[in-house]
Amino acid sequence: MSGKKAVYIYDTTLRDGAQGEGVHFSVKDKMLYLAKIMETGVHYIEAGWPGSNPKDDEFFNRIASSETIGSGMSKIAAFGSTCRVGEEPENSEILSNLLSSCAPAVTIFGKAWKLHVKEVLRTDHRENWRMIRESVRFLSAGGKEVFFDAEHFFDGFADDPDFALACLEAALEGGATGVVLCDTNGGAFPDEIRKGVLAAGKAFVPRYLGIHAHNDGGMAVANSLTAVQAGANQIQGSWNGFGERCGNANLSTLVPWLQLKLGYQVLGAETVNDLSHLSRYVAELANYPFDEKQPFVGKSAFAHKAGMHVDAVIKNHKTFEHIDPSAVGNERRILVSEQSGKANLCQRMKKFQPEITKDDPLVEKAMDRIKQAEKEGFQYDTAEGSLDLLLLDIMGLLRRPFVLEDYHVWSDPLRGELDSVAVVKVRVGDRSEHIAGEGDGPVHALDKALRRTLSVFFPIIEESELSDYKVRVIDGSHGTGATVRVVVETRWGLRSWGTVGVATNILRASAMALLDALYIVILSQSEGKTG
Amino acid sequence: MSGKKAVYIYDTTLRDGAQGEGVHFSVKDKMLYLAKIMETGVHYIEAGWPGSNPKDDEFFNRIASSETIGSGMSKIAAFGSTCRVGEEPENSEILSNLLSSCAPAVTIFGKAWKLHVKEVLRTDHRENWRMIRESVRFLSAGGKEVFFDAEHFFDGFADDPDFALACLEAALEGGATGVVLCDTNGGAFPDEIRKGVLAAGKAFVPRYLGIHAHNDGGMAVANSLTAVQAGANQIQGSWNGFGERCGNANLSTLVPWLQLKLGYQVLGAETVNDLSHLSRYVAELANYPFDEKQPFVGKSAFAHKAGMHVDAVIKNHKTFEHIDPSAVGNERRILVSEQSGKANLCQRMKKFQPEITKDDPLVEKAMDRIKQAEKEGFQYDTAEGSLDLLLLDIMGLLRRPFVLEDYHVWSDPLRGELDSVAVVKVRVGDRSEHIAGEGDGPVHALDKALRRTLSVFFPIIEESELSDYKVRVIDGSHGTGATVRVVVETRWGLRSWGTVGVATNILRASAMALLDALYIVILSQSEGKTG
Repeated sequence: MSGKKAVYIYDTTLRDGAQGEGVHFSVKDKMLYLAKIMETGVHYIEAGWPGSNPKDDEFFNRIASSETIGSGMSKIAAFGSTCRVGEEPENSEILSNLLSSCAPAVTIFGKAWKLHVKEVLRTDHRENWRMIRESVRFLSAGGKEVFFDAEHFFDGFADDPDFALACLEAALEGGATGVVLCDTNGGAFPDEIRKGVLAAGKAFVPRYLGIHAHNDGGMAVANSLTAVQAGANQIQGSWNGFGERCGNANLSTLVPWLQLKLGYQVLGAETVNDLSHLSRYVAELANYPFDEKQPFVGKSAFAHKAGMHVDAVIKNHKTFEHIDPSAVGNERRILVSEQSGKANLCQRMKKFQPEITKDDPLVEKAMDRIKQAEKEGFQYDTAEGSLDLLLLDIMGLLRRPFVLEDYHVWSDPLRGELDSVAVVKVRVGDRSEHIAGEGDGPVHALDKALRRTLSVFFPIIEESELSDYKVRVIDGSHGTGATVRVVVETRWGLRSWGTVGVATNILRASAMALLDALYIVILSQSEGKTG
Repeated sequence: MSGKKAVYIYDTTLRDGAQGEGVHFSVKDKMLYLAKIMETGVHYIEAGWPGSNPKDDEFFNRIASSETIGSGMSKIAAFGSTCRVGEEPENSEILSNLLSSCAPAVTIFGKAWKLHVKEVLRTDHRENWRMIRESVRFLSAGGKEVFFDAEHFFDGFADDPDFALACLEAALEGGATGVVLCDTNGGAFPDEIRKGVLAAGKAFVPRYLGIHAHNDGGMAVANSLTAVQAGANQIQGSWNGFGERCGNANLSTLVPWLQLKLGYQVLGAETVNDLSHLSRYVAELANYPFDEKQPFVGKSAFAHKAGMHVDAVIKNHKTFEHIDPSAVGNERRILVSEQSGKANLCQRMKKFQPEITKDDPLVEKAMDRIKQAEKEGFQYDTAEGSLDLLLLDIMGLLRRPFVLEDYHVWSDPLRGELDSVAVVKVRVGDRSEHIAGEGDGPVHALDKALRRTLSVFFPIIEESELSDYKVRVIDGSHGTGATVRVVVETRWGLRSWGTVGVATNILRASAMALLDALYIVILSQSEGKTG
């Protein structure tokens, strides 16, 4: 359509990415991940290895029974390996699990380096080629679109080009839609990648010629781009570069390189424009700290500290920025005198006071309050409920419907269930209530006591429910005395919103977030009545 | 001596590195840094910009009065800029500060891109060349070894090669020992770097042809290596890639690439063999969290999780490692998780029982226990301390040195500091202690009470410290009643390890992780005594 050359993204965040140390997705997280990534136009999403562990099985079952998943733009891929040495594909448990999975695409890896055939498989070359060819054929015949991951292709190619290429040939003879050249150990140099890809592209013309690079030499992005320039048209990678050891090729870096700097067609403009947010969302799901020094999408990526740089960048942003930060949903930050974000903020304040303009001193004031709060550890991008309350407060429009006068919590963790008790004192007008609640753990007890007490005054809050609760230690190096941030998500009918609290005491941080959530329910109700 | 081609390292960690967000060196830190780096054989160390701020001035004064500094193998360099538009070098404060500094080498930057000459300097090309030539000449005549940092050389070269090369020429006419081609905005692609370096190397033969790359495109390492292969013989970079925005070229990655993989002579073998330690030491001085996913030197760099990888790496480490981890002072780690196989586990169990084999029923039993624990929410890849305790337990080798008989926690979050109290009862043999502790928040109180009580029996635990504390809500959809996982990291002398606890009550989960951490301190001590 655009006349630009296309590069197809094969997203292995949920499979190879999840192999990264410290990266953890629950099955629920994975479902959320799919729902989000399916909107982006990523071409293939590798969901896991069916049959390898109960969690992956549960995930594939959930995908199979989900109506929405099939309707997205992305294809689900299942991952696995060829049959074993001496085994017929029909007898391979691995292959039969792949075949019976709900995924329309399947990727299997096989050996492309003689060292592995000899020392790991302990078989001969012909048998290796047979395993590849017949495994691919078996899956193809079963109706799957098959990709062959040529493990250690570049090491294998350096060692014996004919052998390595013959492995690709075996896969294509078996009917593979694509062959993927893997730098499995991640130690290759761009020159080696170029040679290998050129040789593969000269010998064969598969529908997809893929590259799968690891970052053990800090070269995963450079190697992937080199491969594309040498003729590869598919990239396997993960958001934020999650993955085993030093990680996989970072899609958060690769996509802007390809689409914004090198002129390829990769994903829709809306996705690229939202990349900073998307990358953060994925890190949040994986509960992995987001790398703020990350190219393009990190908070530091366009942060200018040196005075001379700041001066120049204000004269012309090209002087010290290699791309416009807004092209990837990021923003310039002037570390000395920050002035970004005002437009966004003003836009949000218009919800409550439509006539407000960017130059209104209230916008400046709100900006200062937010900056101060962020310094203390608050974050509003996942807590827009708390942000709205803060803005209403600054505009003089907030009337808190109740006051939490006091609360205490006792916990006796070895007692088993309902091991904690909280007592809460709430005042509405001149009437107070003092009510206790029991729970599993102190936060649960506090939450229950708060809701019990408030529902005396505001029965409506029983209609709302807490749909998510997250805790993050902001600076763990202070140990158990560290500040924590609690983010709570509340659902009420069709609406849902996040609220945030920050304190060294997790109970206080939780109370702040819970109170904000309940304020919104109560205020929205009275709004509904008057409006 | 070795016949290998030399590459000279110019270390800008203390100057450009210190511009990185979150990187902070005190003057004392900088002195420690110099002492350490001088031992490594790094050729030039950029110490700062004399005259630009009081901290840098103090540092240069300390260097000048230090007897040891001059005796090292490295040369100190001072950083600054050319004289201003229309200014004579004799009248330049910047240049006179550089000249009077104690540094034998000086690096000044100047413009090499017409855009900057026009829009930032607002002068003409001739004046730009004069500023460069005369500034270099002034410093050279004053006895300094002078490097010229050609700012934005690659953008300037792409825009107008003749203009950019003429800037280098001006510096060489002025007597520069070296010219350094800078990718200041960090957005260049290796092909552009190659073209620029080849052109400079063809036009001139300076003593040093340097490369200064930034990581805004994730290419700083690839670009630096490409420059070396195109003829550059000096690299400016920083340890751990510290630096403005996305950082500078990472010396911790570049040095092993050059010396171990590409056959150049860079630093002494002892330095390279100690690189993991050195990189951590620098991060420690800068008070910046060490990136454990870093190539070569990170803790994850040789950490294997997938079962098949582990199996193969044990057969032959080359199968899944691009270099031998010990060559950079790092080590292989076998991570245990539900995705990994028996081989990983057995390898780990050998630490305690060297004769154990993969078929031992204890391995199967351990596997089952781990899988069960992971289903409950435990994770062992960041909690190897707890894993070791679990394995010792299964092998019948664990004797817990104490029992936590009971504990209670009270919290009054609105009280302010020390708002929580914990009481802990511990038994060792037939002696019990019942001690209270106060803290900021309930977890902190519990931690303090535990340590106070246990140190009565085991004074050694006061030598250990908590270096990190993390909480994750495992399934937030149960709201505040969700299960949480707590991971604690403990440091004791040179050792550090993670431990984990899981429960619906965050205090219970924290207690589990803290207890495991303390068991290890106590057990390691008695091991030391008997062993």
